[in-house]
Amino acid sequence: MGIERFDFKSLRERYPPWLDFIAQLGQSFVMTDHRQTSLAQTLPATVPFVAPERLEERRGAAFDARLGANELGFGPAPSALQAMKDALPEIWKYGDPESRALRQAIGARLSIPIQAITIGEGIDGLLGNLVRLYVAPGDPVVMSAGSYPTFAYHVAGHGGALHTVPFAGDYEDPDALLAKAKEVKAKLIYLSNPNNPMGTVHTAQTVQSLIDALPRDCLLILDEAYTEFAPEKTRPAIDIATQNVIRFRTFSKAYGLAGARIGYAIAYPDIAQSFDKIRNHFGVNSLAQTGALAAFNDVSYLEATCEKVAAARDKIAHIAQSAGLTPLPSATNFVAIDCGQDGGFAQQIVSALAEKGVFVRMPGIAPLNRTIRVSVGPDEALQIFEQALSEVLTALR
Amino acid sequence: MGIERFDFKSLRERYPPWLDFIAQLGQSFVMTDHRQTSLAQTLPATVPFVAPERLEERRGAAFDARLGANELGFGPAPSALQAMKDALPEIWKYGDPESRALRQAIGARLSIPIQAITIGEGIDGLLGNLVRLYVAPGDPVVMSAGSYPTFAYHVAGHGGALHTVPFAGDYEDPDALLAKAKEVKAKLIYLSNPNNPMGTVHTAQTVQSLIDALPRDCLLILDEAYTEFAPEKTRPAIDIATQNVIRFRTFSKAYGLAGARIGYAIAYPDIAQSFDKIRNHFGVNSLAQTGALAAFNDVSYLEATCEKVAAARDKIAHIAQSAGLTPLPSATNFVAIDCGQDGGFAQQIVSALAEKGVFVRMPGIAPLNRTIRVSVGPDEALQIFEQALSEVLTALR
Repeated sequence: MGIERFDFKSLRERYPPWLDFIAQLGQSFVMTDHRQTSLAQTLPATVPFVAPERLEERRGAAFDARLGANELGFGPAPSALQAMKDALPEIWKYGDPESRALRQAIGARLSIPIQAITIGEGIDGLLGNLVRLYVAPGDPVVMSAGSYPTFAYHVAGHGGALHTVPFAGDYEDPDALLAKAKEVKAKLIYLSNPNNPMGTVHTAQTVQSLIDALPRDCLLILDEAYTEFAPEKTRPAIDIATQNVIRFRTFSKAYGLAGARIGYAIAYPDIAQSFDKIRNHFGVNSLAQTGALAAFNDVSYLEATCEKVAAARDKIAHIAQSAGLTPLPSATNFVAIDCGQDGGFAQQIVSALAEKGVFVRMPGIAPLNRTIRVSVGPDEALQIFEQALSEVLTALR
Repeated sequence: MGIERFDFKSLRERYPPWLDFIAQLGQSFVMTDHRQTSLAQTLPATVPFVAPERLEERRGAAFDARLGANELGFGPAPSALQAMKDALPEIWKYGDPESRALRQAIGARLSIPIQAITIGEGIDGLLGNLVRLYVAPGDPVVMSAGSYPTFAYHVAGHGGALHTVPFAGDYEDPDALLAKAKEVKAKLIYLSNPNNPMGTVHTAQTVQSLIDALPRDCLLILDEAYTEFAPEKTRPAIDIATQNVIRFRTFSKAYGLAGARIGYAIAYPDIAQSFDKIRNHFGVNSLAQTGALAAFNDVSYLEATCEKVAAARDKIAHIAQSAGLTPLPSATNFVAIDCGQDGGFAQQIVSALAEKGVFVRMPGIAPLNRTIRVSVGPDEALQIFEQALSEVLTALR
């Protein structure tokens, strides 16, 4: 049988260029167990995002400001924490594999039947299952170069042929996505609105125009992970009668439950229910279901959160400007800061900030990688960032 | 494009017989979205196990005794509950995608490197990824008919050709599994030891003999979900130098954390790490990692749990015998009770117990389905079961 092991970099030529998209992230190696599927044998073993915990191990100390993973440093609603605390003694029970209570609450709020909603282990998990349902090896998929790497990871993992289009400035480009999708006859288009990593957002009308123009056989993945932070006018009306759109939302961002791993998809009911063909039915933590339900029902806390996030965004923008950098407009819980030079310079800043105890990340692809991406957080964390950024820039200049 | 929808039962002839294995469980329908992969189009949308929550909705009241899902009714260690409670305010952070602290603890206890360990969303999640790595459409896989349905679900979900062999009495039959694997050139053999749903267990020597006799290209999936309840002499020595075995363990059973969704696999390091090719890296809940680590480190609570479980098994056996039924020997946290007639009779008992507020399950396939499967629980739950069983049998006789 024999298992062979290679360093990924030495074998890059074996892989289609879009795998570079993934290989750039974290360390990878290729392990060839000849019993694995021919597809699995071509995949690098990697962790798409290096965890802050690993960076902390390398520097030998915890970060003083954790502003790199677009988490909600303000924390979840006390009502959600209390609900999880109350449910803790019941954790010996498997959670509801259908997350019925949560789907009922979401359905009632959005005026859609629960059959149009499926729950998963965060948007990451839902994206993986969606790709598995739709993408056979060689099937074309379209996304923006530099948009969410985990989506590219899943497409690669199922052997899809990923086609990318550039951003238009700091915005994803619906026209380019559509044109490319038509050109390659894409099964799926991925669009995040608001966008990660740049923080920009399109109006509902722009997104609706894309939906209306979709080829008949093309499914739009509308990733709305950050939508709660964005103005109402950026959300197209939910229409579960269309078979061309699936929308993903999460409790990791505005609801402050990133560690819980729970998100949902909204789609034409038969599409939403088709996740039952392949998903890990008991995969969602029971406390995550409890916490998500309580958080979803705490509308006033969400509103307060969004106000705090907007204020923190303004503060980050102010810090950037004071340091002579250019903050980009953001409809999310992070701000991309244009550092005015190339990716190498931004990488120097990210690394130097890490040495000073500040965790931030940056986009992986030019020209987006002229920016660093700073998540909102409490004032103390932003003050630490402000001080460290000042010192780093002084040293680099 | 057009999405078609069919009732699964009317379309059974379209599916290979092994899909019946899954279709018998829960309600299913087939939704054909012609954009989905040819494989996905053939799969029924189903929930492999009907949740007790659904049964409770149907009867309009909660169960008084929840003894059907092989959970640990005694609950997890207070130390694990406390650790999760303490970690709750940090749930706004993503969990460590590499579960490093937990893998270090497991590795230290088992004297293996952390590279030989991978963590996932329960054994269910790990099984799904293992099958995805190894099984391409048409690839042969062998298991015992009536063994863990979720494994069959994953094999079906990846288009594998599932070959089954019968139990030998109430035991899985290693010789038959091996012979069938050789006959069909199986990539994977699935064996649970102790076995679910019968509770029986083989000695380490019997399992080791199977391992030693495996064809060179065959990987044995050794599901040890219940191993903590079984005697030491049922566990073959851990040997991560062999490329023929992957072992699965969980925190859902002996550690009482079923709702947390966390389990682990032990294998040759390159095999364990190859899960990084495809897994949802951030899929495991952060509190689950914290709770699992604390539970794993609380050795004395585990020992006390195993004593309580053994006593509860004896009590269930006594209840069965007093009712004129035959308990099977068990090395798990449940007891299969031979009801002395066919599957129809056992099903009547399961349904009648449910009406009386007692949740139990039963095997899906003859002749195993002459039994009902009763999980251990606190005395109060077993007393409720005893009373209900007596009434049910009186009514049925």
